[in-house]
Amino acid sequence: MAKKTAGYRMGIDLGGTKILAAVIGSDGAILGTAKKKTKGEAGPDTVIKRIVDTATAAAAAAKVSLKEIGGVGVGAPGPVDFETGVVYSAPNLAGWDEIPLGARLQAALGLPVQVDNDVNLGTLGEFSLGAGRGCQHMLGLFVGTGVGGGIVIDGKLYRGARYAAGEIGHMTMQPDGPLCGCGRRGCLEAFASRTAIERVVRAGLAEGRASVLPELLAAEKDRLTSGVIKQALEREDPLMTEAIGQAQRYLGLLVANLVNALDPEMIVFGGGVVEALGMAFVQPIQSHALPGFLQQRHADRIKIVPATLGDQAGVLGGAALLGPFVASKVQ
Amino acid sequence: MAKKTAGYRMGIDLGGTKILAAVIGSDGAILGTAKKKTKGEAGPDTVIKRIVDTATAAAAAAKVSLKEIGGVGVGAPGPVDFETGVVYSAPNLAGWDEIPLGARLQAALGLPVQVDNDVNLGTLGEFSLGAGRGCQHMLGLFVGTGVGGGIVIDGKLYRGARYAAGEIGHMTMQPDGPLCGCGRRGCLEAFASRTAIERVVRAGLAEGRASVLPELLAAEKDRLTSGVIKQALEREDPLMTEAIGQAQRYLGLLVANLVNALDPEMIVFGGGVVEALGMAFVQPIQSHALPGFLQQRHADRIKIVPATLGDQAGVLGGAALLGPFVASKVQ
Repeated sequence: MAKKTAGYRMGIDLGGTKILAAVIGSDGAILGTAKKKTKGEAGPDTVIKRIVDTATAAAAAAKVSLKEIGGVGVGAPGPVDFETGVVYSAPNLAGWDEIPLGARLQAALGLPVQVDNDVNLGTLGEFSLGAGRGCQHMLGLFVGTGVGGGIVIDGKLYRGARYAAGEIGHMTMQPDGPLCGCGRRGCLEAFASRTAIERVVRAGLAEGRASVLPELLAAEKDRLTSGVIKQALEREDPLMTEAIGQAQRYLGLLVANLVNALDPEMIVFGGGVVEALGMAFVQPIQSHALPGFLQQRHADRIKIVPATLGDQAGVLGGAALLGPFVASKVQ
Repeated sequence: MAKKTAGYRMGIDLGGTKILAAVIGSDGAILGTAKKKTKGEAGPDTVIKRIVDTATAAAAAAKVSLKEIGGVGVGAPGPVDFETGVVYSAPNLAGWDEIPLGARLQAALGLPVQVDNDVNLGTLGEFSLGAGRGCQHMLGLFVGTGVGGGIVIDGKLYRGARYAAGEIGHMTMQPDGPLCGCGRRGCLEAFASRTAIERVVRAGLAEGRASVLPELLAAEKDRLTSGVIKQALEREDPLMTEAIGQAQRYLGLLVANLVNALDPEMIVFGGGVVEALGMAFVQPIQSHALPGFLQQRHADRIKIVPATLGDQAGVLGGAALLGPFVASKVQ
């Protein structure tokens, strides 16, 4: 089959702010990409049209016609019924309530389409072509506005009985902890997401604590970007050091809990903050986690590492949904 | 093959106080059992001899010769290298330090032997022949002196990369919580095991709180048995109600965490306390857990139930290690 066609696939990452599409070869190589704004406020019909346009543009960039593409894997920013391709909801997109994204894209593109949760596909991307290559049991943890998780077991994405597995960001770390965006208290996300880091920092500034942050924020229109976090840490800002330290402590505790329950080979950390800081973010998590492993035997075998695919993890994971890649220099 | 032999298997449950062995048919029926004291204080050589004696007695009880038995599955009370059959350690047995139990029993019995952790086998027993029949994704939680866990994913025991998965009792529920037997703070086990329940109760008695427990304990030589717990609850003892309530609250929180991470179809609760109290113990756990599910869709599909096999879960799980049972009235 690999001889009859070039085995092109398309991966699409539908995000809250942008849509990324890529044509990907059977070896996992990216052959062409396109990016458009999501315009999520305009409702599902507009967003779906923009997904189709992005897909068409990616095919053009790869100099491939849509007909030559074997299938499309799409990541959506919310819970998905993996079997039917229905997106149950998408908190950052207006009007997404049980939208049959798979069926609608299949009709519009004339191609087989599979839809999954974006964090699952980021995890699958890292597992297939990134930091997790060669693992059998791997966890992906993506630290952004929230904290998302994905689980690979026996070399396959594990989705759970209701396709709801991997909500690791909403494991309770402290029953009386800070309020989380989900309405409960003390979720990991309430300690370790970018939102949580920002909350600690803004509270410190409001208390008048000395910090380089007002200066750094002014240069970024008051947005606490990953770049601001990185610069503040480089300048040893005590407030940012404290906020990041809290995130790392709770992520360490989470990693220990996950190792005790699931004993994976590898935990891959991705997302904007991790990309900006790399091993400097991950190493303290590892140090916090290690004493919490109940089984210390071979504890050194468990790798805790930063993701390597950056923004491309989602589209590569989308392509990986359609089957394993053939061995190549990429692997 | 089922026609050539009767497909007999043997399951052995090596516990801290007793050894249980059973000959089990290819349909999961128990055909004969034997039980002996472990005498763990006498060291591994004595214990292994007693296991062989118990196995021989079980075969005699089933009127089957050892030669007719296809294989033996053994549960050990500690971490096990499932591949080699080496028991790394066994906290309640003297001198068990890297004992090659599988090889030693194989030599003594002249039969193929597989060794696994006892909680894994209890989980596998409930999955194969007990409360979890028909599930694909199931968790077993056994509340005893400690709290042990087992994980079934895609219809198979999941053991993890170091055969160390399932240590759910040592997930941290509260970083500054009470000291656990493992030396860390705030593990689930430190809130919800029989040991934790006893600690709360004894502290209350030491403070002079009113309770029916002194009377009940006197009748049991001061041992806080499952029977004592049950009677105290039936008499609405405020101290025991409080201790059990704490265990149920933290088990509810744990269940919510596990559902958010793993989205299983079923969580089966076993162990002495659960056996004594049944659904009366499990139902409040369910009520505490439910509001903590991030994904509420189809939350009612997740079954939280008591185990059904009691003491036999381990030997049945041992037999299930050797392959699936044939369909029968037992199933």
